[in-house]
Amino acid sequence: MKLLEERILKDGVVMEGDVLKVDSFLNHQMDVSLFHAMAEEWRRFYADCRINKILTIEASGIGIACIAAQVFCCPVVFAKKTKTRNIAGDVYMTQVKSYTHNTSYDVIVSKRFLGPEDRLLLIDDFLANGAALGGLMDLAEMAGARIIGAGIAIEKAYQPGGKLLRERGLRIESLAKISRMDENGNIEFVH
Amino acid sequence: MKLLEERILKDGVVMEGDVLKVDSFLNHQMDVSLFHAMAEEWRRFYADCRINKILTIEASGIGIACIAAQVFCCPVVFAKKTKTRNIAGDVYMTQVKSYTHNTSYDVIVSKRFLGPEDRLLLIDDFLANGAALGGLMDLAEMAGARIIGAGIAIEKAYQPGGKLLRERGLRIESLAKISRMDENGNIEFVH
Repeated sequence: MKLLEERILKDGVVMEGDVLKVDSFLNHQMDVSLFHAMAEEWRRFYADCRINKILTIEASGIGIACIAAQVFCCPVVFAKKTKTRNIAGDVYMTQVKSYTHNTSYDVIVSKRFLGPEDRLLLIDDFLANGAALGGLMDLAEMAGARIIGAGIAIEKAYQPGGKLLRERGLRIESLAKISRMDENGNIEFVH
Repeated sequence: MKLLEERILKDGVVMEGDVLKVDSFLNHQMDVSLFHAMAEEWRRFYADCRINKILTIEASGIGIACIAAQVFCCPVVFAKKTKTRNIAGDVYMTQVKSYTHNTSYDVIVSKRFLGPEDRLLLIDDFLANGAALGGLMDLAEMAGARIIGAGIAIEKAYQPGGKLLRERGLRIESLAKISRMDENGNIEFVH
């Protein structure tokens, strides 16, 4: 998506440790008009797929998911990160490894909000190792929901997540796919 | 706001410990068409106030804030909860007491995204003790930003937060103000 790529080139900053900082428009300050254009793009990809729910993960997925939900006319459910093990049995739970923070955390979603009647679009801001998106797949599968596909803003295509999850059967539509980047500010995209 | 009050009466559940569970439409599963109606209500309250940024706090404020930002045609910034003390000096930081979890956490916002040119609308899902909303006020004041007011979905009017923050000079527009509620499902509103 040209608009997003241009914005990444203009406002993105490549930091040490393979970090692409896009906090001025994507995941700290949020440009909702850009989010709307992204949502329209996902709607073109998933036209006629009868998506009836969007599943995302806190925190930075929520804003994008809510704007997308307006375009798809459906509700959003966000998976919550938690450190307190929920033993009540009223949630689906899976573990997500965070490569950034070198730790793991549990993510949960209430059983009341995911089920076999759901045709899901999974939304997140980044795809790199695929841990978060894989976690959303886990939760959806536990619920017996149908996963139609995923909408990702920025995919680091040189990281293994995209390949792994596509092999697992997930359709992924990433709006900007980065093939390489370096700290001199060079960012290249796959087309 | 009648629509929100009716939704609370229909789908809200009063739990032990003064908890109003509205996770089916507000803060776990999210009804973005309701959020849009809420945003339109805040726009009526804050017409001609030239709001140019919305400030909220993760996680459950983000969705409401993003839909509101579409209506106000401005960006959103969300304050992040953190446990790692940031000493880089590039963020504003304050401490927020969580009464629900009986703990405190730091919230931060990058100095790049808040400044004297900002005319802020503070958005959050709940107002009870006022800790989170007070934290957003702290951050805005550190940045020298102008706080135009706050937009709250549900205010527990019998808790001290609203009174405290209004005395601190904050204009607060809460769309549903609860005067009392009990575990038999009785919920009453202030009008």
